[in-house]
Amino acid sequence: MALPRALLFDVFGTVVDWRSGVARELAAALGGARDWGGLADAWRARYQPAMEEVRSGRRAWTVLDVLHRENLEAVLAQAGCERLAPAALDALNRAWHRLDPWPDAVAGLTRLRHRYIVAPHSNGNIALLTNMAKRAGLPWDVILGAEVVRAYKPLPESYLRAAAALALAPEECMMVAAHNDDLRAAQAQGLQSVFVPRPTEHGAGQRSDLVASGNWTLVAQDFNDLAAQLGA
Amino acid sequence: MALPRALLFDVFGTVVDWRSGVARELAAALGGARDWGGLADAWRARYQPAMEEVRSGRRAWTVLDVLHRENLEAVLAQAGCERLAPAALDALNRAWHRLDPWPDAVAGLTRLRHRYIVAPHSNGNIALLTNMAKRAGLPWDVILGAEVVRAYKPLPESYLRAAAALALAPEECMMVAAHNDDLRAAQAQGLQSVFVPRPTEHGAGQRSDLVASGNWTLVAQDFNDLAAQLGA
Repeated sequence: MALPRALLFDVFGTVVDWRSGVARELAAALGGARDWGGLADAWRARYQPAMEEVRSGRRAWTVLDVLHRENLEAVLAQAGCERLAPAALDALNRAWHRLDPWPDAVAGLTRLRHRYIVAPHSNGNIALLTNMAKRAGLPWDVILGAEVVRAYKPLPESYLRAAAALALAPEECMMVAAHNDDLRAAQAQGLQSVFVPRPTEHGAGQRSDLVASGNWTLVAQDFNDLAAQLGA
Repeated sequence: MALPRALLFDVFGTVVDWRSGVARELAAALGGARDWGGLADAWRARYQPAMEEVRSGRRAWTVLDVLHRENLEAVLAQAGCERLAPAALDALNRAWHRLDPWPDAVAGLTRLRHRYIVAPHSNGNIALLTNMAKRAGLPWDVILGAEVVRAYKPLPESYLRAAAALALAPEECMMVAAHNDDLRAAQAQGLQSVFVPRPTEHGAGQRSDLVASGNWTLVAQDFNDLAAQLGA
């Protein structure tokens, strides 16, 4: 294995625990007793279909904050929640900017940054990833992601343009994700790949992405383990 | 004055001393005795005309590394320098990735970052700004600039798209520059403005941009002074 120059991180699920954070914010905004994790799941379930409208070309380029906001209104209506004022919906929508990292994430990234370029390559938009990093202390060198490359993962150009933005060849970049399908798409474009399991991303009963299902460059238990494996 | 949320920094001249750094790298690459500062000036003199081809629409979007590389070949030929191999030209072209910050820059940015989003908003491309920051220790929260917004300063959309990328209104952003014309263009789009004099950017005999020539939001002696004025 040739050491990479840059590590590109999936964010939702890989770096941050979106389900707990979104559930917490939904509870705070809506009050009462509900299955908040289930409502977070329902919001998240609309994520891929919304991006698919953009990936397919049926919809012009639209950042994730806008898709999340539309999906929030739909999911609250579907769940029969009380109507929130637009400003309250905007504030709740920014729950995705305020997610907490997994316990190893900041320490592992801080180690990795000494030796490699570390960047999020997420479907989140620039403001979301910047605000999240500032609040959580994620020490990115540069914010990449769908808004910078104008393409949602797993489109091939998403990975290729991220490498090109760093003036690197695909093989000089290593995609780090808790999702085998993200790694499969990155590997198909020539990037290196690291699977990091996040077995509670989807809650206690998670059944997907518990183990590596491809021939990835590395498998790491967490970001500290990745730093150790990469000599950082 | 309402405090901004984000500070957007011009980079070449404002954050880093491009002339000394480029002169040093030219001397190392070419050897012999020459007016290296003058050769750096000649390379830089081709910067605005090259970007103007893109701004005008006569040329498709092209990142600064490519413009710098073309300009390097032209200026070396004009100066009668020996021909360098393509790999040597590529390495010398990345002199712009290896510029040193002014003495106050890292300390001032580090203070400002505690309270504000700090970002370069430069005509440099993402790889250039990322590599520069990593080498020099510039603690950016996010790399903005021409490649992210697909427009070279001082086009109006360059400033507006930078604010929009942070999901901020123009008036929530403050442009920081050693160049009055950059501030004038930012102010025209509603951004706040800070002039920081860099009286040796162009060498000992500098005659332009020695003082603020507009009604800027603030004038600061350096980035530490700016941090003090902004309560950071």
